[in-house]
Amino acid sequence: MKNKHKIVNIVLIAKSLYLYMNAVEIIKKKRNGGELTDEEISFFVKHYVKGRIPDYQKSALLMTIYFRGLSDNETLSMVKAFIASGERVDLSHIKKPKVDKHSTGGVGDKTSIILAPLIACFDVVVPMMSGRGLGHTGGTLDKLESIPGFRVHLSIKEFVSILEKLNVCMIGQTDDLTPADKKIYALRDVTATVENVGLITASITSKKIAEGSEGIVYDVKVGNGSTLPTYEKSKELASKLLQTSKDFGQNAVAVLTDMSSPLGYAIGNWVEIKECIDIMDPETKNSDQSGDLIEVTHFLAGAMLEAAGKVSSIDEGIEQSRRMLESGEPLKKFIELVKIQGGDVKYIKDTTLYPEAKFKDTISAETCGYISKQDALTFGLAAVNLGCGRKTIDDKIDYSSAIILKRKIGDVVAPGEVICDITGESAEKVDSTKQMLLKGIEISETKPIVKSRIIEVIN
Amino acid sequence: MKNKHKIVNIVLIAKSLYLYMNAVEIIKKKRNGGELTDEEISFFVKHYVKGRIPDYQKSALLMTIYFRGLSDNETLSMVKAFIASGERVDLSHIKKPKVDKHSTGGVGDKTSIILAPLIACFDVVVPMMSGRGLGHTGGTLDKLESIPGFRVHLSIKEFVSILEKLNVCMIGQTDDLTPADKKIYALRDVTATVENVGLITASITSKKIAEGSEGIVYDVKVGNGSTLPTYEKSKELASKLLQTSKDFGQNAVAVLTDMSSPLGYAIGNWVEIKECIDIMDPETKNSDQSGDLIEVTHFLAGAMLEAAGKVSSIDEGIEQSRRMLESGEPLKKFIELVKIQGGDVKYIKDTTLYPEAKFKDTISAETCGYISKQDALTFGLAAVNLGCGRKTIDDKIDYSSAIILKRKIGDVVAPGEVICDITGESAEKVDSTKQMLLKGIEISETKPIVKSRIIEVIN
Repeated sequence: MKNKHKIVNIVLIAKSLYLYMNAVEIIKKKRNGGELTDEEISFFVKHYVKGRIPDYQKSALLMTIYFRGLSDNETLSMVKAFIASGERVDLSHIKKPKVDKHSTGGVGDKTSIILAPLIACFDVVVPMMSGRGLGHTGGTLDKLESIPGFRVHLSIKEFVSILEKLNVCMIGQTDDLTPADKKIYALRDVTATVENVGLITASITSKKIAEGSEGIVYDVKVGNGSTLPTYEKSKELASKLLQTSKDFGQNAVAVLTDMSSPLGYAIGNWVEIKECIDIMDPETKNSDQSGDLIEVTHFLAGAMLEAAGKVSSIDEGIEQSRRMLESGEPLKKFIELVKIQGGDVKYIKDTTLYPEAKFKDTISAETCGYISKQDALTFGLAAVNLGCGRKTIDDKIDYSSAIILKRKIGDVVAPGEVICDITGESAEKVDSTKQMLLKGIEISETKPIVKSRIIEVIN
Repeated sequence: MKNKHKIVNIVLIAKSLYLYMNAVEIIKKKRNGGELTDEEISFFVKHYVKGRIPDYQKSALLMTIYFRGLSDNETLSMVKAFIASGERVDLSHIKKPKVDKHSTGGVGDKTSIILAPLIACFDVVVPMMSGRGLGHTGGTLDKLESIPGFRVHLSIKEFVSILEKLNVCMIGQTDDLTPADKKIYALRDVTATVENVGLITASITSKKIAEGSEGIVYDVKVGNGSTLPTYEKSKELASKLLQTSKDFGQNAVAVLTDMSSPLGYAIGNWVEIKECIDIMDPETKNSDQSGDLIEVTHFLAGAMLEAAGKVSSIDEGIEQSRRMLESGEPLKKFIELVKIQGGDVKYIKDTTLYPEAKFKDTISAETCGYISKQDALTFGLAAVNLGCGRKTIDDKIDYSSAIILKRKIGDVVAPGEVICDITGESAEKVDSTKQMLLKGIEISETKPIVKSRIIEVIN
C-alpha cells in the first residue's frame, strides 16, 4: 500500500527529526553502538552548558561513552564543541612559534617549572595552561602557588600581555576558555567517568588548542603512578592526543615516559619548585636524585624545540637545551616570570628563606641491599595524606610538607641509612604518611635494572 | 618492612571504608565489573530516595548497570531496597490465596480487565496494581479511567478494604509503595536506561511483592509490539522475573506470548473495555477478531488458578476459566468493581451509551488476498498518535479514539473490504494515523500460518 499523503509524511518526518535530536534519543543512539554526528555532539554540549540539558542526562551520556568509547570523528566533534563554548586566545600577532607541553600527570613530575622558562629563552612563546593536583598526582598550579603571592588566575588579556613581554606565562584554565570542558570535567569527576581515552583526549586537546599553541608535546605517563591503568591505555591515549592535535593543525609529538616511581628527589609543592631552581641554577651542584628528572626535562625540551621548528631533531634540541640550562638564562627567565605574576622572588633567589614544615621523620633502611621499589602510586597517595594535595575540593594544601628521596631505585643502602625524609605540619600526618610509604618501598639483594625514563616517542 | 603502628592503620582502614562506601566508588566498582553487595545497593537506593545522592550519580550507576547487567544477587538486593523504601500491603488476615498477573506490555493487550474479576469469582484475591500506557504500549489504568468516575488512586486502606469485600481491586502504584522504584523509574525514562532485564525485573517484582501477592503470573510479550527487542531478551526477562519472585517465596509462572500483532479487535481505551465486556457478557456473540485475546486470557487464568492452588494444572484451570466466563459471574463482579471504585456502571451495562469519537475513516483492501501482517509496533505508535496514549507526560488521552480491527492476520479480504476502522477527535489525527497504519499492513497471495499466541510456559 503506497503512501498518498506526502504533506502528512513531511510533518511526521519533521516530528521524528525533532524527537531524534532530543537528549534521550542521542543517549540511546550512542548506547546502542551508533556514531554521533557533529550536530548531535554540538547539540548536547551546547544545551548542557546552557543548562537546558540536565546533569543526569549528561552523566548518562558520559557513562555510555565510557563503555562505547569515542570514535576519531566523535572526538573531533567534542573538541570543536568544547572550543566553541568559550573564547579562544589569539596569539597571531606574536610572530614567534608557540609551543606548550602537557603531562598526563604523575608523582614528583615537575618538568613544566623548568621547561616553560627554558623554552622561552629560545624566543619561543610558551602559553602554558596547567592544572591542579588530582587524585595521587601533583599539579603545576599548586606548586606555583607555593611561591607566596604567585597568581595563576589571570585574564586572557594579562596572559597575552605577559607572553608578549616574556614569551612565557603559566596560568590555570580561565572561565572564558572551554567552559564546556570545565563543567563536564566536574561532572565526570563525581560520576566515575574520568578514565576514558576519548573524553580525556577531548578535554586536554581542546584546552591546548584554545590557549593558542601551534605546537604541543604530550608527556604521557606509563606505570602505576600515571592516571591510566596499563601501557596499552597510555599508548592509546598518546596516539589519540597526537591525532586530534594534528587534525587541528598543531605540530604534535607524544613521549611515553615511565611513572612507576617518583620523578626527581622531591614530592610536594615548594620542594618541587626548589628542586627545579637547583637544576636551573648553574652554581648549584644538582642532587644525584634529580638525574631522571633532568633526563626527562631535556628530552621534552628537545621535542618542544623540534615542534617549534627551532631544531631538526629531538637530539639536536636536547643538546641545545643542555647548553641553554648551563647558561643560567632559564633561571633568570623564571625569576622574571615569578615577579610579573606577583610572586615573591626573594624565595627563588634564596630558597633557604622558605619556612620549613614543623614535624620531621625519616625512613631508614633496615637491611643492606639495593632499593628495588619506590612505588609511585603509594608515594603519590602518601603525599596527599601528608597535605601536599587535596582529598576533597575544600582541603587546604600544606605547601612546606614534603617527601624527599635521599635514595632512588638502584641505589645501594646500608642498615640505618636514610631512604627518605618526611616533613609535615602535624606529627600525626607525618606518622601516617610514613606508615603508608613503608609499604611502597622494597630493598633487594640484587641490583635492579634501572632503565631510561623515556619509553617511546610517537609522532 | 612491617607496620608497627596498628592504631594508625585502623584509622586508615576506617577512612578507606568510608571512601569505599561513597557513591563514586560504588559506581566505579560496578563499572569495572565488580558485583555490588547488598549493603552497597541499599546504601545507594536509600540515599538516592532521600535526595542525598544526586540524580546525576544515580543515572551514571543506571547506565553502568545497563552495560554490566545485574547479577541474581544484585537483583535481589535491588528488590529488597525498593521494598524497604516504602510500605508493604499486609493481606495476611484475608485467608484466601492472593494472586496477580503482570504483563510486560503490548498493543491491544487487555487481559487484566477480564482476568481480575474472573479470578476473583474463584474466591481468589486479586490485588492488582497496574501501570499506564508507555511508549507504544497501552496501560490498564488508562483503560479503566475511560470509564467515567473510575478511581485508580486509592489509599492502601481502601485497597485492602475493597479486597476484603470483592476479592479484587484494580489500582495504580501508590506513593507509599516502593517509592524508590517510582523515583528511579522516572529517571530511567529520561536517561535511556529502561531497557535492561535486571532493572525491569527489580521494578516489576518489587511492586508485585509489596502489593501482597503470594502467587504471580508473568505474561512476557515476545515480538516487535513488546518492550524487548528479541525473543532471547524476553525469555531472559521471563526467567529472571520467575527466579526473583520465587526467591521471595512467591508461587510464580511465566508465559511467553506473541505480540507481533495487536491482541483482540480493539486498540484504544474505552473500546478495549468494551471488547472485554463483550467477552464477559454471555449474551453477546463475541467478535471473531477476539479469538486470540480469549485464548490468551484463559491460558493466563489457568496459570493464575494453578498459582493460587485452585487447580493442579494450567489445562484444568483453562477449563474452569471457560466455564466461569460462560456463567456470567465475572461480568457481575466487574460491575461491582467499577461501582465500588466510583465508575459509572451505566456504560458497562449498555456500552452503546458511551460517546463516540467525532471523526472516522477506514482502511480497505486494495487487492485480493490474505492479511499477512498487522505490525504491532506500528499499530501501537499509530494509536498513540491518534490520542489513545501520551507522547509526553502532560498529554490528555482521547478515551473514545480507537483503531478497530475488522480483519486479522490470516483473514481473507477482497478489494474494498474494510480491514480496520479509525475513530478520533480530529480529522488530522485520524488521517495521520491512517497513513501510519498503511505501512503496517500487508496482504499476501498465500495464506500465512497463524500460530497460537502461547509460545512457551516457564515455571
